Amino acid sequence: MPFIGVLGGMGPVATVDFMAKLVALTPASRDQDHLPVVVINLPRIPDRSAAILGSGQDPLPGLKEGIALLNRADVGLIAIPCGTSHHWHSELSAASRAPILHIARAAVSRAPRGERTLILATRGALASGFFQRELTARETPFDIPSPDDEQVAVDDCIRLIKSGQPEAAGACLDRVFGNAHARGVRTVILGCTELPLAAVHAEWQAPHLIDCTLELARSAVEYALQRGWNCV
Amino acid sequence: MPFIGVLGGMGPVATVDFMAKLVALTPASRDQDHLPVVVINLPRIPDRSAAILGSGQDPLPGLKEGIALLNRADVGLIAIPCGTSHHWHSELSAASRAPILHIARAAVSRAPRGERTLILATRGALASGFFQRELTARETPFDIPSPDDEQVAVDDCIRLIKSGQPEAAGACLDRVFGNAHARGVRTVILGCTELPLAAVHAEWQAPHLIDCTLELARSAVEYALQRGWNCV
Repeated sequence: MPFIGVLGGMGPVATVDFMAKLVALTPASRDQDHLPVVVINLPRIPDRSAAILGSGQDPLPGLKEGIALLNRADVGLIAIPCGTSHHWHSELSAASRAPILHIARAAVSRAPRGERTLILATRGALASGFFQRELTARETPFDIPSPDDEQVAVDDCIRLIKSGQPEAAGACLDRVFGNAHARGVRTVILGCTELPLAAVHAEWQAPHLIDCTLELARSAVEYALQRGWNCV
Repeated sequence: MPFIGVLGGMGPVATVDFMAKLVALTPASRDQDHLPVVVINLPRIPDRSAAILGSGQDPLPGLKEGIALLNRADVGLIAIPCGTSHHWHSELSAASRAPILHIARAAVSRAPRGERTLILATRGALASGFFQRELTARETPFDIPSPDDEQVAVDDCIRLIKSGQPEAAGACLDRVFGNAHARGVRTVILGCTELPLAAVHAEWQAPHLIDCTLELARSAVEYALQRGWNCV
């Protein structure tokens, strides 16, 4: 029976959160009901957002190395719990025998069609535009944070999660969420896998708060269960 | 740089807990400071405790398969966040190029020498006796739960964690912890990786509550940091 492959470490806490969600979404009452998973944590892959913005090393060789390692372990599906890495989704898919889920497709599929949606993600992911393209294809209008104010808070939030300060990270989101609430936003996509770890500490919760890590995990579990990968 | 290899899935929630502890114990302020890790989750390995007690399928072939997969991924060290599996530690070590940490050695090294220690673990692990042997070597006396009463609560606790009911699992520990407290026990080894997930929901906390998952993670991080596996 094939494994679910996870290319992780970007960041490591987000990978743990993805694994916890994968396990929680699997219907199981004993170990043997769970899905076989291989996780490769490659935390040294260069910063994805900086690379997209033209100010950092290219992470594509490292990402491809991870995809090759997972294919060598005979995985039947790959999930990458790092939003920004999906800038290279086509290149990675072309280099992989196993299909690679797309985090933005998983997340956007949960957005109420036609309802204005706020996308929170790294500057790199927003510059790449894959969340915006998925929402446009779903005929759903979107907002992104103001670059000089709200996005600074999102950047700080992500950095604080990566350095182990989830409460402070939650406080960063409060400002962005407060503005969104005041504008009448009801749907927010947490489009970076660090953000759900901060959002649990934020005061306001949007009526439709879409957690990209949870939706990626849900897609992976559904794919595996449909194919009976949980059967002994 | 080598990977830390993790043979997981026994159970899957305990593996997530181990990964969370590994990440939390690593001094890091950004992704690139973290340690490279490969996790193989093989939840279908037959029940280890039942096998030791002579009533279940042999898990050794499955355990060996996991160790072989990790060695093929060029890991430099292996941790198995499942207490009972350490019954086969010698056989697995003989079949592995990478050294395999011993969870009981990691846990027992934190017990105050000479102070009576309560060992909580599966019936299989207690029948195997590896925790008892490590404590004897440390000249530290020990108790184990009464088989018809306290151990029933420990068994229930482990089963409830594996089926996703941590609060109910914590309540099972209350009875065992209450007896221990009344007897003046100050040191308790949580020698099954499900137990720390229940103990956080228990009322009484022993002055020395030794979490085998945490100690295994600490040993892995120390081993890797000493060898500079966190350096880019």
